[in-house]
Amino acid sequence: MNTKDSSIEKLMNAAMDCILKKGYNATSINDIVQAAGIPKGSFYYYFESKECFVNDLLFRYAEAKQNELSVYITDQSVSPLNRLRLMLANTAQKLKADQYQTGCLILKMGNEIADSSPKIQHTLSEIYETWVHLHLGLFQEAQAEGEISMDEDLQALAESYLIMFFGTIANTKLTHTLKGFKRFHWVFFENLGRPKHRLSEEIEAYLQFEEIIDPKDALLAGQS
Amino acid sequence: MNTKDSSIEKLMNAAMDCILKKGYNATSINDIVQAAGIPKGSFYYYFESKECFVNDLLFRYAEAKQNELSVYITDQSVSPLNRLRLMLANTAQKLKADQYQTGCLILKMGNEIADSSPKIQHTLSEIYETWVHLHLGLFQEAQAEGEISMDEDLQALAESYLIMFFGTIANTKLTHTLKGFKRFHWVFFENLGRPKHRLSEEIEAYLQFEEIIDPKDALLAGQS
Repeated sequence: MNTKDSSIEKLMNAAMDCILKKGYNATSINDIVQAAGIPKGSFYYYFESKECFVNDLLFRYAEAKQNELSVYITDQSVSPLNRLRLMLANTAQKLKADQYQTGCLILKMGNEIADSSPKIQHTLSEIYETWVHLHLGLFQEAQAEGEISMDEDLQALAESYLIMFFGTIANTKLTHTLKGFKRFHWVFFENLGRPKHRLSEEIEAYLQFEEIIDPKDALLAGQS
Repeated sequence: MNTKDSSIEKLMNAAMDCILKKGYNATSINDIVQAAGIPKGSFYYYFESKECFVNDLLFRYAEAKQNELSVYITDQSVSPLNRLRLMLANTAQKLKADQYQTGCLILKMGNEIADSSPKIQHTLSEIYETWVHLHLGLFQEAQAEGEISMDEDLQALAESYLIMFFGTIANTKLTHTLKGFKRFHWVFFENLGRPKHRLSEEIEAYLQFEEIIDPKDALLAGQS
């Protein structure tokens, strides 16, 4: 890694943590360069403005999330809908472990600066469409495997799933509980998706989102 | 109204607009007092801190929204589920007219400052529970009138409805479209709530959330 790449890497890592916790406006460029141990001049050498920097940060965040997603999406050891459940359970687990202090950068920037920055709003919209597309693929697979009925509107399902996901993250911010995840599960796995799997008691307990056990173990136990 | 009430009123009105648009951190106390035309000293005479001020602002916002809601909730000229649709349509209409520049103060503060202020997080949680309770009442009425089946879990429905509502508002911030409202409607009125009303073409067109017509006229036309 050359000096330029290494400096950008340090700035991005420092900013990610700070902006996820404190938000855009409460994080100054001084905060970022100090946390990264980089001279302030270098920041402006690499980035035209804070807006351009955060725009790049969003793409980096989205890429990292997409990499996390693809681990689940390609995991053939569990069914497509159970992969979605695993992702959901994993997100819930992380939020709780972090005492609800982080969340989703896309949602956070959407709320805080999409209105004042058309550039960032455009980036957020693009990332949202990519995420819908990724989830759509998983729902198509679930339909092909008979987990979702053939007449289900998968585009509507994928978009609604992401909307409810954002609402659920927002709910954890308000309530500092995982109650929203229980409702998310109720809507998409007990009603809409209607998979009507027979779930093992371990999975049922897990999906109460009250005590955190290893989700994958629970799901695999349920398949045996 | 005495001087104290009048000054507080001016400060609250000035802050509401500013904080809804720019957020908490981007709005300084100077911005608020200047917009209100009130000396800065008065701000600290009435409020201990910006945090305490915003906490009061949230209660005021919630009260105003609850007053708006109760106009719909008590309107016996349309069925309970159609009252929900009217509220939804009305929100969509306002967001579009405002070019998605405002949104929901509860969601905005939840994203921006709930993590750093236990006081505000507690207030947000309290307001959320009040809103769940208000919606629960409407779902109970809908069930009593046969719009929702008797075995539906109404508490789950009310909580999920609000979570999806927050997700939908967040979606408008990302996409600057009303697409999220179409999905919201699909989940709650075409699937979960399963009212299976026969809707008039006017309502169907309205609920595409593409062209804005007067929602109440459309719904009333649909009932005749």
